[in-house]
Amino acid sequence: MDRADEFSIIARYFRPLAAGHDGALGLLDDAALVPGDPARTLVVTVDTLIEGVHFRAGDPPETLAGKLIAVNLSDLAAMAATPVAYLLAISLPSAWNEPALLRWLDDFASGLAREQARFGIHLIGGDTVATPGPLVLTLTAFGHVARGCELRRSRARTGDDVYVSGTIGDGHLGLRVLDGRLGGLTEDDRVYLTTRYRQPEPRVGLGTALAGLAHAAADVSDGLVADLSHICRASGVAARIDAALVPLSPAARRVCAAGRVTLSALITGGDDYELLATAPPAAAAALSRASARAGVALTPIGRIIEAADTEAGAPLVTVLDVGGQPLDVAWGGYRHL
Amino acid sequence: MDRADEFSIIARYFRPLAAGHDGALGLLDDAALVPGDPARTLVVTVDTLIEGVHFRAGDPPETLAGKLIAVNLSDLAAMAATPVAYLLAISLPSAWNEPALLRWLDDFASGLAREQARFGIHLIGGDTVATPGPLVLTLTAFGHVARGCELRRSRARTGDDVYVSGTIGDGHLGLRVLDGRLGGLTEDDRVYLTTRYRQPEPRVGLGTALAGLAHAAADVSDGLVADLSHICRASGVAARIDAALVPLSPAARRVCAAGRVTLSALITGGDDYELLATAPPAAAAALSRASARAGVALTPIGRIIEAADTEAGAPLVTVLDVGGQPLDVAWGGYRHL
Repeated sequence: MDRADEFSIIARYFRPLAAGHDGALGLLDDAALVPGDPARTLVVTVDTLIEGVHFRAGDPPETLAGKLIAVNLSDLAAMAATPVAYLLAISLPSAWNEPALLRWLDDFASGLAREQARFGIHLIGGDTVATPGPLVLTLTAFGHVARGCELRRSRARTGDDVYVSGTIGDGHLGLRVLDGRLGGLTEDDRVYLTTRYRQPEPRVGLGTALAGLAHAAADVSDGLVADLSHICRASGVAARIDAALVPLSPAARRVCAAGRVTLSALITGGDDYELLATAPPAAAAALSRASARAGVALTPIGRIIEAADTEAGAPLVTVLDVGGQPLDVAWGGYRHL
Repeated sequence: MDRADEFSIIARYFRPLAAGHDGALGLLDDAALVPGDPARTLVVTVDTLIEGVHFRAGDPPETLAGKLIAVNLSDLAAMAATPVAYLLAISLPSAWNEPALLRWLDDFASGLAREQARFGIHLIGGDTVATPGPLVLTLTAFGHVARGCELRRSRARTGDDVYVSGTIGDGHLGLRVLDGRLGGLTEDDRVYLTTRYRQPEPRVGLGTALAGLAHAAADVSDGLVADLSHICRASGVAARIDAALVPLSPAARRVCAAGRVTLSALITGGDDYELLATAPPAAAAALSRASARAGVALTPIGRIIEAADTEAGAPLVTVLDVGGQPLDVAWGGYRHL
């Protein structure tokens, strides 16, 4: 093999990942099959991760595989869908030499195999190309949800409680640690925070449990405040949250308490891949049970209120500090290109 | 707007493309919906085009949109699927300045709108990110086919005739012209060949008409010989084709006749996006009618034969010259990374 080619790479690294799904057709065809099911709606999403933008050059390929799967499954979870399968489009840098390429593929495929086993999903197709630029990974994920039961961003109602899963800000802090902008942590905190950045946990079980309970949901990828504002904009409402109620990990709390980062940075930082949901107060007990069953905390952090007069400059999301005063959150609201 | 951001780009350029499909949810959600249908199988495919690899820097954005749609719809056509919708993941170079970015997006979205109207498809979701590298376009296409009627690469049978649609080699010659490796053509031939490279025509109507008639099919993207060998490998058979029967356009015939390119280069060149199909001799009349209805030529070029002893060095695909002697085709069979 003078240079690894597309077909030998598929045969060696990707075909084994497709073995468990008939619709993959052994990766031998031009396309893959997803049989129709009248009782269920197929939910589809696509996300791209680029070296140097969404992950760091040299990030371990196994954890990168985990992150790629996670960011997409997080989108499915936000719509209460159970993941089923995925397509993988991968642009491999021509600059990598052969041994580096094969080693990377070996580790990356191992990571995919591990995630497939965890979530019961399979690779069903893809495209493998060479690029003169950085590594680009694009995953299209497929999930199923009972017809009519998918959650939407656009269905939040005035009076809903606002919930968030897990803890917020860990991914942002993990990136700071990896970028050398946050040192002096204990080894445990360093490992915890960097792992949260590199290997976020998609809230798949919790997401499916929210169907029928929550009015609206989204995943937190751009930052808690930005993603809540997306729910508000789509639903024609506004929200008020209490900064003190936002759940933080012990590691994040320590960093905050030491004055090394502001709470504002954590709730606008992004890379959380937690779920945001809004639900009527009557659903509180059922949500608490769903959270316990899924083994993931679900914390009420505020309330959906009537649409603010945004033309007059009122924000879609108001963050209150401990004294009940609006916190000046420089969130921007958009992930800039 | 200090710099175009993801959300304003989606709102301005992409949301209008999603207006006609309920499952797009107005591009407001984390994912899109594809309702299940027990009578039809969903066919899914993904293809990536990279600047400097699959298209040339500076290629007109409208034709690039056409090519991106075409290469994916060609995959669906090869399985006899009717295209329905697509997801678009787009990595935009950070190096582009704002006016260039917006101009490019404007033209690209116009191209997508034109292709959507032609094929009756809609954008239903995607991801827009910035990249330090070249422009990368990844499209996931969805199509429908009546349950059990999809065509596969793996079902060719000994005795089948081998057919190819349209003409072969035009895309390869078009690329040579654009790269400055083939000059001295008439203006008409130059425009014809470069257009075939930049804007291949996916054989959607012909592909759906092949269902029930052809045993196996694939699209010709890697080159006629390579793609036929993929059919042979997947089906456990071999093939013999007559070089003289391979359909060439008048422009390609002129270039060949002038000795400026070999027939061997044309049948191994790739970028054709024509359909290859194998079918029993009894289907010939019906295929001829299907070809006429679709308005696309379908030319018999050879025969499926028993699997050769490839261990002993026999090729999967034998190409015979005018005298019936095997032609030495340096095809490699793989698209190198």
